[in-house]
Amino acid sequence: MRITRFSDIGLRVLIYLAQDRASGAPVTAGEIATQFNVPLNHLVKVVAQLARAGWIDATRGRNGGLVLRADAKRLRIGAVLRELEGDAELVDCAGLDCQLQRNCILRGALAAGLRAFYDAMDGYTLADIAQGKVGEQVLVMHRSFARALQH
Amino acid sequence: MRITRFSDIGLRVLIYLAQDRASGAPVTAGEIATQFNVPLNHLVKVVAQLARAGWIDATRGRNGGLVLRADAKRLRIGAVLRELEGDAELVDCAGLDCQLQRNCILRGALAAGLRAFYDAMDGYTLADIAQGKVGEQVLVMHRSFARALQH
Repeated sequence: MRITRFSDIGLRVLIYLAQDRASGAPVTAGEIATQFNVPLNHLVKVVAQLARAGWIDATRGRNGGLVLRADAKRLRIGAVLRELEGDAELVDCAGLDCQLQRNCILRGALAAGLRAFYDAMDGYTLADIAQGKVGEQVLVMHRSFARALQH
Repeated sequence: MRITRFSDIGLRVLIYLAQDRASGAPVTAGEIATQFNVPLNHLVKVVAQLARAGWIDATRGRNGGLVLRADAKRLRIGAVLRELEGDAELVDCAGLDCQLQRNCILRGALAAGLRAFYDAMDGYTLADIAQGKVGEQVLVMHRSFARALQH
């Protein structure tokens, strides 16, 4: 079982933005794509969804960039994953053309399991997962990127 | 988020075997592969793991076949999924070469979420998900396969 790459990238974007930038230069999608070695076109789609959810502000143009809008201490990871994972089920019953599909009890059981997963993830806020050494590491990444741009 | 196709097939094998065969002919891997439209070589690997776990008996040869060995009322779906999913994490941190990997808090949070999922699935036994209309449908599948063999 894996969360989608889409969600995975979304969580990293939020973690990256949870630290205030020491210098004034705004964080860009290109910077995050480079830092996490993720294709920019993929990351741009994730950023658009995070912005639609109201958790980040994405401004275009010369001085544009990405800023965390949500309160990291109140943004729950279960909520983030529910949004980014969408309403896909744990099994693709229709795609598999299963003969049990119409009466399936397993399907409901898996849906209950998935809710338990999201509920457990709601026990963590963005601040929880972006704190301590993770936060320090992100600040190192911020600085290293700023230095790389100067050269 | 999806369970693996391996687990998905494993659960269907167990559901299919949870109903006693009315006729004497043993259930074969080929029959289940045909019924669920799954490649036989894939299904054989799943069957081997279910046998290793002690939940089914797989006998080779002319009168060989697959029989449920576990007590369906005691076999918990969380235990089945833990076995079939293996110890893969919800995110492939190493494969993605993430700079946060060493200090990651999210990783532990996701592991806790996964445990909550498995615990919730332990609330269901094989008997729970193989009963009622699902069981009736499986008996219809058993009979239709027996008839097809006669023609």
